[in-house]
Amino acid sequence: MSETGITTNKRIRPDTLKNFCVQAMRRRGLSEPDARVAAEVLVTTDQMGVHSHGVVSLRRYLQRIEKGGLLAQAPIQVLQEGPGWVCLDGKGVMGMISCYRAMERAIEKARSAGIGYAVLRNGSHCGALGYYASMAMKQDMFGLAMSGCTPIMAVPGGKGPIMGNSPLAYAVPAGQEKPILLDMALSKVAAGKIVAAHKMGKDIPDDWYVDADGLPTTNSGLYPHIGAMLPMAGHKGYGLALMVDILTSLLSGGGMLRQVRPWLLGDPSIPENLSQSMIAIDINAMIPIDLFKERMDTLIREIKNAPKAKGSDRIYLPGEMEWEKLEYNRKHGILLPEDVMMNLKGMAEDVGLPIDEWLV
Amino acid sequence: MSETGITTNKRIRPDTLKNFCVQAMRRRGLSEPDARVAAEVLVTTDQMGVHSHGVVSLRRYLQRIEKGGLLAQAPIQVLQEGPGWVCLDGKGVMGMISCYRAMERAIEKARSAGIGYAVLRNGSHCGALGYYASMAMKQDMFGLAMSGCTPIMAVPGGKGPIMGNSPLAYAVPAGQEKPILLDMALSKVAAGKIVAAHKMGKDIPDDWYVDADGLPTTNSGLYPHIGAMLPMAGHKGYGLALMVDILTSLLSGGGMLRQVRPWLLGDPSIPENLSQSMIAIDINAMIPIDLFKERMDTLIREIKNAPKAKGSDRIYLPGEMEWEKLEYNRKHGILLPEDVMMNLKGMAEDVGLPIDEWLV
Repeated sequence: MSETGITTNKRIRPDTLKNFCVQAMRRRGLSEPDARVAAEVLVTTDQMGVHSHGVVSLRRYLQRIEKGGLLAQAPIQVLQEGPGWVCLDGKGVMGMISCYRAMERAIEKARSAGIGYAVLRNGSHCGALGYYASMAMKQDMFGLAMSGCTPIMAVPGGKGPIMGNSPLAYAVPAGQEKPILLDMALSKVAAGKIVAAHKMGKDIPDDWYVDADGLPTTNSGLYPHIGAMLPMAGHKGYGLALMVDILTSLLSGGGMLRQVRPWLLGDPSIPENLSQSMIAIDINAMIPIDLFKERMDTLIREIKNAPKAKGSDRIYLPGEMEWEKLEYNRKHGILLPEDVMMNLKGMAEDVGLPIDEWLV
Repeated sequence: MSETGITTNKRIRPDTLKNFCVQAMRRRGLSEPDARVAAEVLVTTDQMGVHSHGVVSLRRYLQRIEKGGLLAQAPIQVLQEGPGWVCLDGKGVMGMISCYRAMERAIEKARSAGIGYAVLRNGSHCGALGYYASMAMKQDMFGLAMSGCTPIMAVPGGKGPIMGNSPLAYAVPAGQEKPILLDMALSKVAAGKIVAAHKMGKDIPDDWYVDADGLPTTNSGLYPHIGAMLPMAGHKGYGLALMVDILTSLLSGGGMLRQVRPWLLGDPSIPENLSQSMIAIDINAMIPIDLFKERMDTLIREIKNAPKAKGSDRIYLPGEMEWEKLEYNRKHGILLPEDVMMNLKGMAEDVGLPIDEWLV
């Protein structure tokens, strides 16, 4: 038992955790199928070791439902569609649900047109984009998922938060080797790293953050109220973040820049006005899928077997560590960090679920 | 007159330069329409101030035709196609021609399916990808152009060149404001910057390049024979470069990694085995184009008018400087750097064209 009174050395079976999350969501009015989808997305993310984007946020999502910033249920609407694309209205339901449906539609379009693009307005924070990209990968497709974001990042020459850090994720199937999966934001680092440095009383490198004047700082204590995050790779990251914004917020007809509201730090009664988009490419339409997978294996092996840098004994492909964790945690259960357990406990209290029965 | 005997302070009219390039290409066996396309791509690139990717390379391209690494003429072939996609064989003609045709086909597919994806094998170095992205933009579409590349970049944990630096470019129309155009490679910097530092006897920052052991170096003199370029933004740039490789070389069925041969430093008789791909999205299918352009203007103005960092008096959007140069050079003529003029002079001698008559 830790000081919070929560056991954190117990490995929880993924299904147990999913059922617990479903029960919590059901108590806030979600339908069983929607709650199952959201639980699947969140728990899979924890299973892959990405605890910053998994069940840790569920308490907040449910608070936002309670306060009106999210809807528990609403029919996701097709605004218009064509052979290779579809525009959706996510109606402000939980982002896991609307993004899951959006990628389903992108996959469906790709199956007939070869490539499918689904763009979604009235979306909400959706956890890890890698999940949606992987949905296409599991159908032997290339998948790309992108999300808008409330402004937290400065742009070159500017100061203060002007743009979101525009996350994106892609996934591609391989044969014998593990699929490729990259899930990243276009800021230099995630805000969590700055918070962690501050907690440990440490400085940060000077390319992570700018101060109130828009100048690089090593002060880890300014986030989130003073200054702004920096894009990765300077003007290149800025330009790519702009591209993600265009392919999500601009094309969806939804909110853009400051019109996108924060889901975590802001008022929980205000909808996010967020947009997302999903692209799927049906590989087998263009090249026999078995041949493609062989080629992917060749590519992956050639990179993995390349000469190592001094002091390095392994080259990782994007997603390799996450797939290994997924497999390990499937067998052995998920060990949730203490902050995640605390959030689950708080959520259980919020919705009146006995947490002990499920998790400890 | 400079020491090379070439005047470099004369501004050349874009049409004069195009006609000169067309004549040179005609003498190496290109058809008039193909030569016009290639000249248009290359001279527009110089007009935008991107002299590293414009007519400076034409001498090399024509040498490669002479030696057999490129074909002067060949019919670009549709291998297969579907509602939203097409796979092309570029037949090893000059990359400007095959990429231009590929983007034409992607635009055509987008016009009917809403989104179009053209992937090209047997491609060749194509100059600046921004040109092809802009072709879609001029049709009121979103355009994305990507290219494979011969290995010049290390990956995290590895040493020596393993991957290409996988360039990409995108372009989007705006209303009153200038269109957005970003053209970049996924290495930290272009190799030319390392060469330039070396010429000036300067060190380079330690995140540009790795030495023979795969360790960061400030030595500007190792390129290109020892060590390798570094991806921008570490594992993020590595992962994005891999995505571009997958969407070009892997999906095209063409060469990948070391199978892609260098166009500049390698044997001019060997085809490049390069792949490219183009994506176009028909904006107007999804949102009325006038509304979209208004939204783009709002986005652009909000970014430009954001508070400036201390010491900064202007925020640029991607492409803004290049559009300004294009406009200026259209009126006043292009001032080509001396190395470009030297290459043109050499090319004129190679093909037996009197350069003076055209350019000086």
